[in-house]
Amino acid sequence: MSAPLILISNDDGIQAPGLKALCEALQGLGDLVVMAPEIERSAMGHAITLSDPLRLTEVDLGLEGVTAHACSGTPADCVKLAVRAVLDRPPDLVVSGINHGSNTGVNVIYSGTVSAATEGTILGIPSLAISIDCRHCEDFGPARIIAGHIVRQVLAHGLPPGILLNVNIPDLPMDQFPAGNMDGTGYDLTDHGKADWQDDFDRRVDPHQRVYYWLSGRKREIKEASHIDEETVKAGRVSITPLHYDLTAYGFRDELRKWELFASS
Amino acid sequence: MSAPLILISNDDGIQAPGLKALCEALQGLGDLVVMAPEIERSAMGHAITLSDPLRLTEVDLGLEGVTAHACSGTPADCVKLAVRAVLDRPPDLVVSGINHGSNTGVNVIYSGTVSAATEGTILGIPSLAISIDCRHCEDFGPARIIAGHIVRQVLAHGLPPGILLNVNIPDLPMDQFPAGNMDGTGYDLTDHGKADWQDDFDRRVDPHQRVYYWLSGRKREIKEASHIDEETVKAGRVSITPLHYDLTAYGFRDELRKWELFASS
Repeated sequence: MSAPLILISNDDGIQAPGLKALCEALQGLGDLVVMAPEIERSAMGHAITLSDPLRLTEVDLGLEGVTAHACSGTPADCVKLAVRAVLDRPPDLVVSGINHGSNTGVNVIYSGTVSAATEGTILGIPSLAISIDCRHCEDFGPARIIAGHIVRQVLAHGLPPGILLNVNIPDLPMDQFPAGNMDGTGYDLTDHGKADWQDDFDRRVDPHQRVYYWLSGRKREIKEASHIDEETVKAGRVSITPLHYDLTAYGFRDELRKWELFASS
Repeated sequence: MSAPLILISNDDGIQAPGLKALCEALQGLGDLVVMAPEIERSAMGHAITLSDPLRLTEVDLGLEGVTAHACSGTPADCVKLAVRAVLDRPPDLVVSGINHGSNTGVNVIYSGTVSAATEGTILGIPSLAISIDCRHCEDFGPARIIAGHIVRQVLAHGLPPGILLNVNIPDLPMDQFPAGNMDGTGYDLTDHGKADWQDDFDRRVDPHQRVYYWLSGRKREIKEASHIDEETVKAGRVSITPLHYDLTAYGFRDELRKWELFASS
């Protein structure tokens, strides 16, 4: 039996330290192929490229047994292109990350990291996204161990069609993680929360006297239950959220059916 | 009491006939402000622009009482920028469309049209996306009537926090719609389906002997139940799907809890 083929992507770009850390975490678990954006493509959501060609460049990440391609497209493009045009067999797993910055609450909607895993799921491949709650991350040591544990579990159990995992790791030094995080029995199963942003736009004038706007803002502090993704990470625990992409708001159907729109109402 | 303020966006761009048709459909229902991408930004998913400035240009759409801005950003940027930096009061409604091409099944994930409405919902504003199942649409006559009916219902009822409507209209001439579609009591309440694409990439060589890939593919014909968005539109009926952006796969939690990851398992 051949080793599992693991496709690795991200949205921080092929040169991101988090991508390299993920490769290191997964060395030995299978054949690793990286297809990642050639530049940072954060907050791309589930964008795909229809109107432009995509190009590939081989990259040497300096990691034994890791083949890596930089792609001119979005994270979702990377996964689609790898699976449909580059890999010689379907991957057994898609892992996206390790993203610099948590993807909890409404960030999940904007995230290119999650969208790479969603694209894997759409293509029928067990997939997960892994993020760490820091902006300028320095120590990927604990995250490497945690990513390795969780990926082994996904390889062992598989995932049902249409379901992906969204993993968020707090930015703590090794000795501040609960012991369970290191032996793989101390994670929290969470729900996707509502943590969002207090958006703002800076209105500025460029050197040619033209007005422009630049998105700024900060995460809003909202209080959610302890089993919610954002709260879990804030409390220093590893959050694992099962996601799907059936967006039906089932709970609103009965109310909506009463509107004067539906013949049977 | 002042007239409702209705923000209109799309992903086909400010010059799209579907956008103009939507404005015409909503004239008289409130004060209309358009903020739409200056060029086509289809399949952008929920991308937002963090690393670049956004610019605005005033556009005269030749429609009385309609203020229109073209924005250099994505559909989600358009809605965020309008609400946070341009409009002098929060809009009462965000309407995105009328998209050229249906947004059913997995297209909902890729769609910039839906993401504009999702962004409105994230910002706490009742929002809906409207699409018509054609590529080169010529007759927006029925779609205008249908859009008007549905928007009046949303203005009357409002929408709960976190819920948006995704409307898909078949491309039929006026006399082939069931009468109910025209008096507003003949729509189908649907679920978000799984219709997806058989993706393919053309591998080509450019005039400088460099390889590039171009996404192609066609919609896969899958058989779904009649209350699914894609099947409904294919059957010539108007589909209204309530969507949310809580992506938690609640149905998989019990199974996932048995994995050797969770301390309480």
